[in-house]
Amino acid sequence: MSLAWLRQPAAPTDGSAAARARQRQSQLTKPEGSLGRFEDLAVILAGLQGIERPRIDNVHVTVFAADHGVAVHGVSAYPQSVTRQMISNFAAGGAAVSVLSSATGATLEVVDVGTLDERDCPAGVIADRCGPGTADFAATAAMTELQLESALGVGRAAVDRARAAASDIFIGGEMGIGNTTSAAALACALLGAPAEALAGPGSGLNKAGVERKVALIARALAMHRGHVNEPLEALRRLGGFEIAALVGAFSACAQQHLPVLVDGFIAGVAALASARLCPGAGNWMLHAHRSAEPGHARVLAALDAKPLLDLGFRLGEGSGALAALPLIRLACALHADMATFEEAGVASGIS
Amino acid sequence: MSLAWLRQPAAPTDGSAAARARQRQSQLTKPEGSLGRFEDLAVILAGLQGIERPRIDNVHVTVFAADHGVAVHGVSAYPQSVTRQMISNFAAGGAAVSVLSSATGATLEVVDVGTLDERDCPAGVIADRCGPGTADFAATAAMTELQLESALGVGRAAVDRARAAASDIFIGGEMGIGNTTSAAALACALLGAPAEALAGPGSGLNKAGVERKVALIARALAMHRGHVNEPLEALRRLGGFEIAALVGAFSACAQQHLPVLVDGFIAGVAALASARLCPGAGNWMLHAHRSAEPGHARVLAALDAKPLLDLGFRLGEGSGALAALPLIRLACALHADMATFEEAGVASGIS
Repeated sequence: MSLAWLRQPAAPTDGSAAARARQRQSQLTKPEGSLGRFEDLAVILAGLQGIERPRIDNVHVTVFAADHGVAVHGVSAYPQSVTRQMISNFAAGGAAVSVLSSATGATLEVVDVGTLDERDCPAGVIADRCGPGTADFAATAAMTELQLESALGVGRAAVDRARAAASDIFIGGEMGIGNTTSAAALACALLGAPAEALAGPGSGLNKAGVERKVALIARALAMHRGHVNEPLEALRRLGGFEIAALVGAFSACAQQHLPVLVDGFIAGVAALASARLCPGAGNWMLHAHRSAEPGHARVLAALDAKPLLDLGFRLGEGSGALAALPLIRLACALHADMATFEEAGVASGIS
Repeated sequence: MSLAWLRQPAAPTDGSAAARARQRQSQLTKPEGSLGRFEDLAVILAGLQGIERPRIDNVHVTVFAADHGVAVHGVSAYPQSVTRQMISNFAAGGAAVSVLSSATGATLEVVDVGTLDERDCPAGVIADRCGPGTADFAATAAMTELQLESALGVGRAAVDRARAAASDIFIGGEMGIGNTTSAAALACALLGAPAEALAGPGSGLNKAGVERKVALIARALAMHRGHVNEPLEALRRLGGFEIAALVGAFSACAQQHLPVLVDGFIAGVAALASARLCPGAGNWMLHAHRSAEPGHARVLAALDAKPLLDLGFRLGEGSGALAALPLIRLACALHADMATFEEAGVASGIS
């Protein structure tokens, strides 16, 4: 497999720019630390962009969509046809990620990485397909090696487009009926945790549905035991095309100096896989939203991540990341545009 | 005192519009509830604005600034001259609230409700002064009855300007060296809580400073005992001009159909006083940010409020409210612009 690129380390961050930004924060007309996490955000982004006053103007959003063989077991509140229907909705402007992208001025692209329906993709959707959905991971490996390689490359290609458009930050969204089941199984493998620690209601399962989901994941983990200790093989056996595309995208971002704003549970699991595969990738990730999906807490803890928002979202698509985007822009605006004590003639403390 | 207006009840909210908005939420192309608090925000605002699809376009921010007699006891990390210096900074565009207002397109006005300096106000500042700072509440009542009445009216006048400008939401900010001490003392009176439950580091006191602040508030509460069980008298004896202006503004908003986005600790204490004085005022308040000031948790609990953000801010000025503003706008955009299942041709669940 030509996947050597995936394990290349992340680009270094610029400690000097971060230090200059921290120094600037201490001179702005406010008590030091009084803007809390906004101060940290400005400093982190300064280190990533290599400039004292970072800016987030151009935002690139790619939603990767694919179907999942495991969905035949009834692990979602929605039929599989919804994956393809929602792709049309993304492109037509009616979905949450469409409205949020429009409202924030972000550029949205939708990639079909492998939905079940083999007819032509709807207008406005990029077809970069790895197959008609994955295989059922409760019966076999979800992907072939070639499919895994392709799906990771689909993510990298999206980052190439983002960089060509001079994007300042990358948001990866996902859509795929059944994909919280796949993400939970992958997280179990990455974290060495049992199914009940990661499986939740997803799009809206009731208690009995969650119990079925837990049992299915536990059975699959038992079947793949001994083969999923290595992150890439865990991704191939348990993941989905859109999850692998996110892993490829996040790693490519980190290697190519592009900060990532990580969405919720599924993107978080992909972020964890990326961080395991690409040394230093975690440094390039900002975490946007703590999902209502209970397993997310465990994934965030493994990433040592504290998201900016906790608003009870459990939608995916990149919706949590886009909700947090204005906060990041405001943090940058404050950092760049506030007056210093000296400029404003304000006393900087009891002398 | 001609303060009968202050105790007039809040305007009723529109339960029918809220119900129509809740119904619309259930038809949008997402699992029901998957946008968490954004769904609730849209429904609440529909009830306040009386329309199925609420909008927050015009935003009015008034920062009320005043000085505090109690500051002579060294309860702040900054000299009192900073209140007046910061007013100039607000008007000149260099303060956090200035940058945030500009970045969000909000209209910012700055009102001097009574700073220590009796020279003319800086250009761009509205002079609506009740005196050269309050009296030291550790020695006497902070305000005369006439001053209290004036300060409450300053808040109401700001709301009149906001309504004349067709504002969709009102944000009240504050500035005043020493005002966390005043707000904490007022909160103690309103909640029947001891000083150590409400006093915190404010703009940056160390442990010894917080202990001095606690002792000062405890001494003042003992002195005013028996006179501060009634909220208005507690406000007169322990409050500040800018805090009273916030109370007047929040009550006027609730009476005049204008939603309020409440900032952090000090605005939260004013919101609590307003809710105690004006029946139903709490219905018109959205809470933006959980302050790093530890006493805020207790104030929020008394208001049964769960702020949208928790980012470690402890600045005031309206900064936390303006940080949350984009979230409220995005919640409205999603509610208004997402497609329904029927419009998008998406299956709405397993049938």
